[in-house]
Amino acid sequence: MGLMFYFYVVLVFINLSTLPSFNQAKFMEKAASNSTTNEWTLGTVRDSLIRQEDTIIFGLIERAKFPMNSVVYDQSFARIPGFGGSLVQYIVQETEALHAKLGRYESPEEHPFSDNLPPSLIRSHNYSQFLHPAANNININKKIWDIYFNQLLPLFTVEGEDGNYASTAASDLECLQALSRRIHYGKFVAEVKYRDAPKDYGHAIQAQDRDALMKLLTFKSVEEMVKKRVEKKAMLFGQEVSLENGGSKGKYKVDPSLVSRLYGEWVMPLTKLVQVEYLLRRLD
Amino acid sequence: MGLMFYFYVVLVFINLSTLPSFNQAKFMEKAASNSTTNEWTLGTVRDSLIRQEDTIIFGLIERAKFPMNSVVYDQSFARIPGFGGSLVQYIVQETEALHAKLGRYESPEEHPFSDNLPPSLIRSHNYSQFLHPAANNININKKIWDIYFNQLLPLFTVEGEDGNYASTAASDLECLQALSRRIHYGKFVAEVKYRDAPKDYGHAIQAQDRDALMKLLTFKSVEEMVKKRVEKKAMLFGQEVSLENGGSKGKYKVDPSLVSRLYGEWVMPLTKLVQVEYLLRRLD
Repeated sequence: MGLMFYFYVVLVFINLSTLPSFNQAKFMEKAASNSTTNEWTLGTVRDSLIRQEDTIIFGLIERAKFPMNSVVYDQSFARIPGFGGSLVQYIVQETEALHAKLGRYESPEEHPFSDNLPPSLIRSHNYSQFLHPAANNININKKIWDIYFNQLLPLFTVEGEDGNYASTAASDLECLQALSRRIHYGKFVAEVKYRDAPKDYGHAIQAQDRDALMKLLTFKSVEEMVKKRVEKKAMLFGQEVSLENGGSKGKYKVDPSLVSRLYGEWVMPLTKLVQVEYLLRRLD
Repeated sequence: MGLMFYFYVVLVFINLSTLPSFNQAKFMEKAASNSTTNEWTLGTVRDSLIRQEDTIIFGLIERAKFPMNSVVYDQSFARIPGFGGSLVQYIVQETEALHAKLGRYESPEEHPFSDNLPPSLIRSHNYSQFLHPAANNININKKIWDIYFNQLLPLFTVEGEDGNYASTAASDLECLQALSRRIHYGKFVAEVKYRDAPKDYGHAIQAQDRDALMKLLTFKSVEEMVKKRVEKKAMLFGQEVSLENGGSKGKYKVDPSLVSRLYGEWVMPLTKLVQVEYLLRRLD
């Protein structure tokens, strides 16, 4: 018991993702033993979630380089022959169609925002089957789209117009893709957690008990740690760097507390939503 | 003299771009007085160059997330109907065609890698005419493409393949665009410098003396400062961030000394090449 408690305390301190559950120690042992046969283990999933934070923050900083450029979102501004939407809708649809031809959405980690994309034109990469097939039916990008444009974007861009419409829309797509990838990575988080404790989850799954699943997946102190870490990253990556001092001067390209809020209010809850949706179908 | 010397020393310390010339003080005064009538001044040009460093470094870090994925560059791998090139050539051409329809290349700061792009479909942004019209004929993207793929890319990616071909190619394009924008920004640097000292430059331009122009544009100590700053940025942005310490641990996502070398060997020399090319035609 003493040793396990020590191990547990160490894990809480070193663990930097939303992953830890009450079965961490057992989980980590298992993940380690599986690591040669499986791409997704506690270690790789945690590392990926942490790495994806950087991508999301870089994306936000790059989008914040441009002012709002509100015509990009104006349905009546874009008069593109044969297309009824806004410039950003056009960029997203056309870019996703292009990437689909190169097999992007064959990866279980990628989820498109557009419907009816063309099939891949190239030889498929041999992705290992790790997730339950039900994963294919889970895509909450409509929700991510809505939150990004209606809630998040106005918070971290300044009013104005600089003509960089294509770059602005492409930059929005980068943010959307990074957020979507992180949030849908909940499928891998859930699968790893399920494999670690099939009995605990199995009971709640058979009862189709969302609340019980959410409880099993929630670990408040770790969520607080993630929020602190992304805030720190936003400070480090968004500072004005000069050779004289450590940087900073209290001016950041994206408000670090906003990145913390993004994670607390949207990214982590939506990741858990994906986890719950996935687990509810895990035994189908 | 005493005051001017003090002013000069201060400038050398605070100035963080490749801009400073021996006419810095006069230049800065003029830039300040012009700032309401002109988008491009010493201040805005310098700030833009510094801000673009972040974009370039974020781009390199994001590309380094993927392994080499060499099939992306293999002409025989991509069998795209009606297209003879590699996947990256396809992504670049198609993405640039899409962005061209949204007016990207109407901006004097943007330069495409592809030929024969479609015209813009949207109302143009009203870009102010700052550059001499000869600027339109200067595009050294072929050189940038060659250096990026043949020299730089193998230095900061690891061998291997993970199937993320579309993301890899899109990430290459992000790097190419960021480098191209920075290097072609030399046009604005040159114009600002020319307006500051038309006589000094005019003499060398009339003589079509490349060496004299290069000498006027070169300021070794500032170049060394830029190299140090981008190295520091690569450390800050590419570190493994943890809550316990300041970060780092000496492991970076992209080797900081490589970013310094990228600037010293390629970015700054190519920016000066653009400046010389521009100035040679400045009086046409």
